[in-house]
Amino acid sequence: MQGNAQQQAYDRGITIFSPDGRLYQVEYAREAVKRGTASVGVRTEDGVVLAADTRVRSPLLERESVEKLHKIDDHIGIASAGHVADARQLIDFARRQAQVNQLRYGEPIGVESLTKGITDQIQQYTQTGGARPFGVALIVGGIENGEPRLFETDPSGTPYEWQALAVGGNREDLIDFFEAEYRDDLDLDGGIDLALRGLDTVGDEGIDPEGVALGTIDVETEQYRRHETEEIKQYVEEADIGGDEE
Amino acid sequence: MQGNAQQQAYDRGITIFSPDGRLYQVEYAREAVKRGTASVGVRTEDGVVLAADTRVRSPLLERESVEKLHKIDDHIGIASAGHVADARQLIDFARRQAQVNQLRYGEPIGVESLTKGITDQIQQYTQTGGARPFGVALIVGGIENGEPRLFETDPSGTPYEWQALAVGGNREDLIDFFEAEYRDDLDLDGGIDLALRGLDTVGDEGIDPEGVALGTIDVETEQYRRHETEEIKQYVEEADIGGDEE
Amino acid sequence: MQGNAQQQAYDRGITIFSPDGRLYQVEYAREAVKRGTASVGVRTEDGVVLAADTRVRSPLLERESVEKLHKIDDHIGIASAGHVADARQLIDFARRQAQVNQLRYGEPIGVESLTKGITDQIQQYTQTGGARPFGVALIVGGIENGEPRLFETDPSGTPYEWQALAVGGNREDLIDFFEAEYRDDLDLDGGIDLALRGLDTVGDEGIDPEGVALGTIDVETEQYRRHETEEIKQYVEEADIGGDEE
Amino acid sequence: MQGNAQQQAYDRGITIFSPDGRLYQVEYAREAVKRGTASVGVRTEDGVVLAADTRVRSPLLERESVEKLHKIDDHIGIASAGHVADARQLIDFARRQAQVNQLRYGEPIGVESLTKGITDQIQQYTQTGGARPFGVALIVGGIENGEPRLFETDPSGTPYEWQALAVGGNREDLIDFFEAEYRDDLDLDGGIDLALRGLDTVGDEGIDPEGVALGTIDVETEQYRRHETEEIKQYVEEADIGGDEE
Amino acid sequence: MQGNAQQQAYDRGITIFSPDGRLYQVEYAREAVKRGTASVGVRTEDGVVLAADTRVRSPLLERESVEKLHKIDDHIGIASAGHVADARQLIDFARRQAQVNQLRYGEPIGVESLTKGITDQIQQYTQTGGARPFGVALIVGGIENGEPRLFETDPSGTPYEWQALAVGGNREDLIDFFEAEYRDDLDLDGGIDLALRGLDTVGDEGIDPEGVALGTIDVETEQYRRHETEEIKQYVEEADIGGDEE
Amino acid sequence: MQGNAQQQAYDRGITIFSPDGRLYQVEYAREAVKRGTASVGVRTEDGVVLAADTRVRSPLLERESVEKLHKIDDHIGIASAGHVADARQLIDFARRQAQVNQLRYGEPIGVESLTKGITDQIQQYTQTGGARPFGVALIVGGIENGEPRLFETDPSGTPYEWQALAVGGNREDLIDFFEAEYRDDLDLDGGIDLALRGLDTVGDEGIDPEGVALGTIDVETEQYRRHETEEIKQYVEEADIGGDEE
Amino acid sequence: MQGNAQQQAYDRGITIFSPDGRLYQVEYAREAVKRGTASVGVRTEDGVVLAADTRVRSPLLERESVEKLHKIDDHIGIASAGHVADARQLIDFARRQAQVNQLRYGEPIGVESLTKGITDQIQQYTQTGGARPFGVALIVGGIENGEPRLFETDPSGTPYEWQALAVGGNREDLIDFFEAEYRDDLDLDGGIDLALRGLDTVGDEGIDPEGVALGTIDVETEQYRRHETEEIKQYVEEADIGGDEE
Repeated sequence: MQGNAQQQAYDRGITIFSPDGRLYQVEYAREAVKRGTASVGVRTEDGVVLAADTRVRSPLLERESVEKLHKIDDHIGIASAGHVADARQLIDFARRQAQVNQLRYGEPIGVESLTKGITDQIQQYTQTGGARPFGVALIVGGIENGEPRLFETDPSGTPYEWQALAVGGNREDLIDFFEAEYRDDLDLDGGIDLALRGLDTVGDEGIDPEGVALGTIDVETEQYRRHETEEIKQYVEEADIGGDEE
Repeated sequence: MQGNAQQQAYDRGITIFSPDGRLYQVEYAREAVKRGTASVGVRTEDGVVLAADTRVRSPLLERESVEKLHKIDDHIGIASAGHVADARQLIDFARRQAQVNQLRYGEPIGVESLTKGITDQIQQYTQTGGARPFGVALIVGGIENGEPRLFETDPSGTPYEWQALAVGGNREDLIDFFEAEYRDDLDLDGGIDLALRGLDTVGDEGIDPEGVALGTIDVETEQYRRHETEEIKQYVEEADIGGDEE
Repeated sequence: MQGNAQQQAYDRGITIFSPDGRLYQVEYAREAVKRGTASVGVRTEDGVVLAADTRVRSPLLERESVEKLHKIDDHIGIASAGHVADARQLIDFARRQAQVNQLRYGEPIGVESLTKGITDQIQQYTQTGGARPFGVALIVGGIENGEPRLFETDPSGTPYEWQALAVGGNREDLIDFFEAEYRDDLDLDGGIDLALRGLDTVGDEGIDPEGVALGTIDVETEQYRRHETEEIKQYVEEADIGGDEE
Repeated sequence: MQGNAQQQAYDRGITIFSPDGRLYQVEYAREAVKRGTASVGVRTEDGVVLAADTRVRSPLLERESVEKLHKIDDHIGIASAGHVADARQLIDFARRQAQVNQLRYGEPIGVESLTKGITDQIQQYTQTGGARPFGVALIVGGIENGEPRLFETDPSGTPYEWQALAVGGNREDLIDFFEAEYRDDLDLDGGIDLALRGLDTVGDEGIDPEGVALGTIDVETEQYRRHETEEIKQYVEEADIGGDEE
Repeated sequence: MQGNAQQQAYDRGITIFSPDGRLYQVEYAREAVKRGTASVGVRTEDGVVLAADTRVRSPLLERESVEKLHKIDDHIGIASAGHVADARQLIDFARRQAQVNQLRYGEPIGVESLTKGITDQIQQYTQTGGARPFGVALIVGGIENGEPRLFETDPSGTPYEWQALAVGGNREDLIDFFEAEYRDDLDLDGGIDLALRGLDTVGDEGIDPEGVALGTIDVETEQYRRHETEEIKQYVEEADIGGDEE
Repeated sequence: MQGNAQQQAYDRGITIFSPDGRLYQVEYAREAVKRGTASVGVRTEDGVVLAADTRVRSPLLERESVEKLHKIDDHIGIASAGHVADARQLIDFARRQAQVNQLRYGEPIGVESLTKGITDQIQQYTQTGGARPFGVALIVGGIENGEPRLFETDPSGTPYEWQALAVGGNREDLIDFFEAEYRDDLDLDGGIDLALRGLDTVGDEGIDPEGVALGTIDVETEQYRRHETEEIKQYVEEADIGGDEE
Repeated sequence: MQGNAQQQAYDRGITIFSPDGRLYQVEYAREAVKRGTASVGVRTEDGVVLAADTRVRSPLLERESVEKLHKIDDHIGIASAGHVADARQLIDFARRQAQVNQLRYGEPIGVESLTKGITDQIQQYTQTGGARPFGVALIVGGIENGEPRLFETDPSGTPYEWQALAVGGNREDLIDFFEAEYRDDLDLDGGIDLALRGLDTVGDEGIDPEGVALGTIDVETEQYRRHETEEIKQYVEEADIGGDEE
């Protein structure tokens, strides 16, 4: 109770520290991320896998319009979790950054460089007054100099590089799952299998191929590719997971 | 009581997160939408149907001035629900976007592109200080590349694509109704019938043809057309619904 | 009591929603309108009638300086109710709009177009911080394409078109009166008679011809005309209403 | 007590409405006006009379420096009451308006036009944030098209035209006095007599010719003229009023 | 207690009126003036006298650096009381005004005109947000058209003209003293005598010639002249006042 | 409790002093620094050593992406502790400063000059409103005129020069350790040994070579060099420290 | 307790007066100055002495980096006390002022003129919103027209000229010491002796030559000179003061 009252004094102001050095608004933005369904990313030797839980509330709602996987450039994709409208702003920002880089330097933007451009943008909203932080976490995947790269941006504006990760709801469980199951020598199909098996562990009903978005960027083509539902169904069948429809 | 006090701390500030990651002002703007009468949209193979409950408080008030259906461009219409004055701002914004697109690229704006332009505008008002969110939801319908498209914008600035939907008062009941009655192979008349039957379920008295606005965009002409009251009466009669005046 | 405390939390901030989706400052601005004396408008086949209760507190105060009827352009007049100084700002805004339209397009501004320009201006003051809403309601009357038009602007910035209406004090009673007495086939004299009889019902003493302002715009001349007190006296006598001085 | 608490919630914010539609800061500015000594204005057929109570706290203080009567242009004077420093700002504003009018149109500014320019300025300070209202009321008197005109500006920014009025302390009593004593056919001397007799009723000691400022603008010369103390003494003697020094 | 609570509601906001029409921040700025030691001014037929109590806390502190008497232009001096750093800003403002006047019009600025420029500046800080009022009062003395003039500026921004006055600590007592002792036919030496005898009445120890600053502007030379301590000692001796060191 | 309540009054406002002259937001930013893992710096005759604890929460997280050691220019490196996203901003600022210096003056920036540029930037965020302080401390090391230099920047914006220091968690213990163990005549290997032995004392498990970042700038090459994990392992072995894996 | 509550109402707002005319933020900034160690200044016939207590918390911290004595121009030095990062801003400001003066007028800036430029800067931060006052006091010493000058700037922005003074911790005691010991006819060595003996009285351990910074500007060379530790040791020995190391 005391704790609550004291806490309130600091979390109402957007950009100030609490006595123990925390930024409450940033921590609450993390809660906004957790309210979204999960998105995952897996890095393999052959490329990067991005997947997202896109289950919808109503059969009349077009699944494709629940945007959680986004092509940023030929060689980079982003999976998001959290406040959808906020994510759209950062996705637009990322696309503009990619275009500007191409125009200015005549070459595709690097995955790490793009990620840090995004986190700088996010950080600004946590330090300067007049706006709230972004309630969204992103998984940035792509090929850079022939190497697959996989990054996370969190609401504080910190970039992290991962082998495999999850953002959004059930993040902790999914990362535990990946820590147990991930192997360095996965090929792209192995990465897809791992990502889908991860999403299958979330919720009571198991994975629904129609409620999943899947994208990959392989090191050979360096092209982001969105996978069709039919492909996903096949992967799910091969993984022997999913709900009662198999 | 505790809950109320805690809640107040977060919903007074426009653009900040609550400890559980919610944006109260956006949620309250959703309540403003619910205070308005319902508007519905139905997508069929032949085109898009927009309809709105435009019952007025006084017989002296001109029904046409209760604007809930708006022509944006030749091939796009919008139905709104919620705070009327806010809706007018977004409608004006949408019309300017459509004009600018025509001028700049020499071709009509896409339905999805227009929708996302509107949601970006809405999102700005939820993140940056100095203004409140828009208390309005829109149904954006039109033809894009020969295909009927039907979108929703909500007060958070998230775009959704639907087969059939409702915004405003009684949204939940209407969507339940559409989920039960919608079929993929509806023709435009079937879509009109579904929309009107939906609006008929709202309130105690059933639908009043003079208290309904109806607009359609068919794939053949790609022209938004507002339907006269006489036409609506005929549709209502054919649907065998409505109040005691039939 | 609880209710009051909760309410206070939301009505102090100018531009934010309450948990039930209301904008209290706009609702309080509506109260400011009710504190003013009534103004009425009646649309007839032959033209538009605007009338206002302009009773003054002191016999030394010049009635004409209690401005409630305003000529905006040759063919448009406005009656106001509520905070007088606020009304003056909107009247000036309307006049500038009319002049700009004439200069830019070489033709008089439309009544509907002018009304919507005013409501857009009003809406801005309800969404963006740093100012309070306008505490005023306007009745905009005029001739457009040979047709009489009659609009209302309210403090939320919503435009409505009416056949007959009242704003300010006793609005509800006056609209009830008009709903009972209004007929579609009124001529201009009939409209004047209706407007004056309406104002006669307000207060204990009945209408005082010297305490009423009357303006009309007829479809033939398309000219706004302010009526002299002598004329008003005659109308009052014919209507067999008014205080003990008849 | 309850009332006080509720009231405080609204009067602290400069530019917001209370639940009953009032602007407390404007009402408090009216109190600031009442704290000043009275100024009066009388309109007669031959011209306008402005007079002000300029009693000073110390015999060492120069009466003339207690500015309550101001020449604005050859044909216009202003009497003020309330917060002196605020009044100075509006007086300067009025003088600039008069000069600009002369420069731009080559003719003297109209009394009504000047008054409305002042009230527009006052209104801005009651609607837009970042400043408080002006704590001052003005009596604007002058000749326009050969006619004497007499206006009041109040802290809300509303202009009123009067035959005779008072602002500042004892306003109510003085207006009652004028309502009883004013006659339409007063000549300028009659107006001076009325103004001075009015000021004589205020306070316990009766009028002191040295503690009164008197200015007139007559229709013949259309010139504002400040009257000397000797003249005022004569008028006071003729009126058979004043303190024990007569 | 109640009173305190209610008062706090109004005095925290810089530029708003209290329910009884007062501006608390301005009144508190007056208290800041009273916290300073006294400065006095006396107008005589031959010129103006400015004097200030400049007693210092430590013998190591240079008396001259306790600035309370300031030359503004050849013919104008200012004595200040209150918040020293604030006074410096207004003094700089006054000097710039004097220079600008000389440059623009090729003649020295008038004493009254300068005073009013200063009070306009002061008033701005009491009406517009974002700054506090100036905690200082000034005595402006000089020669204008061959006449000695003596003005006061207070923290509200009101200009007053005086024959003799005091600002700062003990103002009331000093003005009482001047009211009793001042005569219209004083020559400059008589004015110096009066000023010094006034300052002698303040405090327990009587006047200390080394703790007094004295400046005069006589009508003949129209030059501000700062008097040396030796001169002051002689005046004090002649007046037969001062502490035990005589 | 009292203390807490009083404290809250001052730490909520970003840039104001408490009654005892403290800036709470700056002190809380120091707490944010302590929440981060430790970074250390050691200055030797032969060069500067920077080292940082980079243990990660998950084996899937790439250690390199936990950025705590940063190359700023050929001859300057920075180790950071605290809020990671804030550190990135200051690092970017430092790199821009170094580039600008090279471009403008054609020579590398001095270590002290760079440090003071950074602390000026930090100070701005503690005095001017609209933003919070930076929650980060930096250790700036490099070669200037052939001399090794080692600076600290703290959240108040104060620069300090050290022989050996630590920032972040366990700062006090680490400085105690360095005060006991540091010798003036250390060579670069001795400095590395001291830095690693310092980090070994932190936490329960001792140092993990894979969880440490190490950088040096030696006076001979004047080049910042990041050391590989293998090198670090060798140093750790030679120092006979670290966890159970040796 | 009451007192505390009332006080809090005024000290939270940066730039407003309390009911008794005080500016609490400025007074709290004075407390920030007292939290720093002492700096002293002594003016002699031959020049000015500046000295500062620069004891450090850790033997690893370079004493020179604890900046309390600053060369501003060839002929001017400044000693500071209080918030170090704030002091740096004012020092930079002073240096820029000196350079600008040299460039603009081709001659060195005067000591008094520089001091007043600094205090004007300080005052701005106490009157205008959006920033806190500077938590620092400065002693400005130098030669002007062949004369030694010694000024103080305090957090209110008031300049004072002294013969000898102290700022920071133990100010009162040190000024008492100087009042007792200062003589007008001191030569520069006498001034150094007085300054060091003053600092020796502070704290329990007496002066430590390595923990003192000493600078002088003599009238002959008009050059600021920083003294080496060895010199200081000699002065301390001659004064027969200091801790147990002598």
